Amino acid sequence: MRITLLAGGVGGARFVRGLRAAAPDAAITVIGNTGDDITLFGLHVSPDLDTVMYTLGGGISEEQGWGRAEESFTVQSELAAYGAGPDWFRLGDRDFATHIARTAMRTAGLPLSAVTRQLCERWQPGVTLLPMTDDDVQTHVEIADTDGTRVVHFQEWWVRMHAKAPARRFIAVAAEAAKPAPGVLEAIADADVVLLPPSNPVVSVGIILSIPGIADAVRDKVVVGVSPVIGGAPVRGMADACLTAIGVPTTAAGVAAHYGAGLLNGWLVDTADAAAADAPELAGIAVRSRPLYMTDVPAAAAIAAAAVDLALELSR
Amino acid sequence: MRITLLAGGVGGARFVRGLRAAAPDAAITVIGNTGDDITLFGLHVSPDLDTVMYTLGGGISEEQGWGRAEESFTVQSELAAYGAGPDWFRLGDRDFATHIARTAMRTAGLPLSAVTRQLCERWQPGVTLLPMTDDDVQTHVEIADTDGTRVVHFQEWWVRMHAKAPARRFIAVAAEAAKPAPGVLEAIADADVVLLPPSNPVVSVGIILSIPGIADAVRDKVVVGVSPVIGGAPVRGMADACLTAIGVPTTAAGVAAHYGAGLLNGWLVDTADAAAADAPELAGIAVRSRPLYMTDVPAAAAIAAAAVDLALELSR
Repeated sequence: MRITLLAGGVGGARFVRGLRAAAPDAAITVIGNTGDDITLFGLHVSPDLDTVMYTLGGGISEEQGWGRAEESFTVQSELAAYGAGPDWFRLGDRDFATHIARTAMRTAGLPLSAVTRQLCERWQPGVTLLPMTDDDVQTHVEIADTDGTRVVHFQEWWVRMHAKAPARRFIAVAAEAAKPAPGVLEAIADADVVLLPPSNPVVSVGIILSIPGIADAVRDKVVVGVSPVIGGAPVRGMADACLTAIGVPTTAAGVAAHYGAGLLNGWLVDTADAAAADAPELAGIAVRSRPLYMTDVPAAAAIAAAAVDLALELSR
Repeated sequence: MRITLLAGGVGGARFVRGLRAAAPDAAITVIGNTGDDITLFGLHVSPDLDTVMYTLGGGISEEQGWGRAEESFTVQSELAAYGAGPDWFRLGDRDFATHIARTAMRTAGLPLSAVTRQLCERWQPGVTLLPMTDDDVQTHVEIADTDGTRVVHFQEWWVRMHAKAPARRFIAVAAEAAKPAPGVLEAIADADVVLLPPSNPVVSVGIILSIPGIADAVRDKVVVGVSPVIGGAPVRGMADACLTAIGVPTTAAGVAAHYGAGLLNGWLVDTADAAAADAPELAGIAVRSRPLYMTDVPAAAAIAAAAVDLALELSR
């Protein structure tokens, strides 16, 4: 079985780890969001790709959900001593090595997809990890606060401001001219099942879908998504701030309606949101409810198995 | 008093530290060798500039003479796990931060001289540290061994091969088209005294002198050098391998004769080499002997003071 996912960071990574356990024989391709990518200290940082890679490769900090286990912070404190910022994006020494290696390969002319493949040689994630695009597409946020209306990089809003300044819209800068990375459209077209893990529907999955060609390819497939919202709140992160900005209610039904029946065939919600099955705006989407908290790998595996089962049911 | 020096790494740095102690009121400018610079992991490493900066700023590993004190090596071992080399040039985590900061500033468009000034803001070396040039000049070595005759980067020969493969010649690649960095010619022209510390006469001082304009500017001044050779052997490093390559005997007199009376006015040798004062090939160079081992800062200060005294005597 071939399974392709569009994934963001922590939630996507943990879901894929569960899926890998639930479907050990499946050929899994993860199309990762690179809109979160940012240049820090001159180095190319790919937070979402790295979270997937570290999580599946056994190098993740389980407590944080992102970054490396057993980290030290010598390099960044030395950079601070040079007055080199920012200090609001914390990078550990082990993590720095990834960004140094990535940047060196990119400077040498390799596209991000080839760099990602090379980095995965070490981590052996057991899936094919592809960036959504090799082009430079970064998510920016238009915010309005007491300093007025302005546009900042997504990470500045998300990490430095903790998404506190109200967002007015999200801009995938240069997305309209970007091409899917090699293998992305093929991985979608060849998939038996396309899954949307419980990643941020706006700034993770939404950004991936903004790359020309990807949404159209996904619409041709049986697609099952897993709600990142349980009981009216995001399971993790600050997705509510993103949903509110684009006028989508922070509910399991609201997210599914945002994806729409044209894209989404099946939708897993938590038992707390079982009523979503009767929501009129979800007509045409098969809704199933079950516990959705990914408390550990077996729990994530059971959720992933349920998503695959629903997709297979809808494929018949 | 204005004192300008042409300096390499460890020997130059320790001499300047002594000079700073001996002449606390002097305006000292150090013109550093950048022929040793190398790009490692995509980062711009300036070994000689950093050795001077760390030594004068109190961050040096006193045991090694180069690199940072209290180092850890997480980043490089992580890079090795990615298969990223080389492994023969050891870079610590604290040191990495310097190279990351330097590379980020250079990528942002700052010339090396401005970058060096910025890095020195942190270290406050108490001297003006200038790279010999802002242009990309790197020292390569033509070697001949069982693998045949070929050209390698100086660091590969020096660090990886421990200078064991016989060198046939040294090439300061692109030196003929390089310009002295801003301030270099002025620092020489305005100097009351120009000193050559006990740095490698071939691959440190020799490379600096190969930048068009520098040797001519130095020739116009009273110049006193300190022998890097004591009793027929280099005090530190493998200068003998360099001297042999260019047909210069590894003796205190041989090095002075190599610089020549056209460049050098005074020459400090160790008491072990006092006979150099009578060497016919040093006609026109005032030779003085005294203990030259820089065993600690006071010893280095006494040597530096003797060099300044000789220069002032020759200026009268």
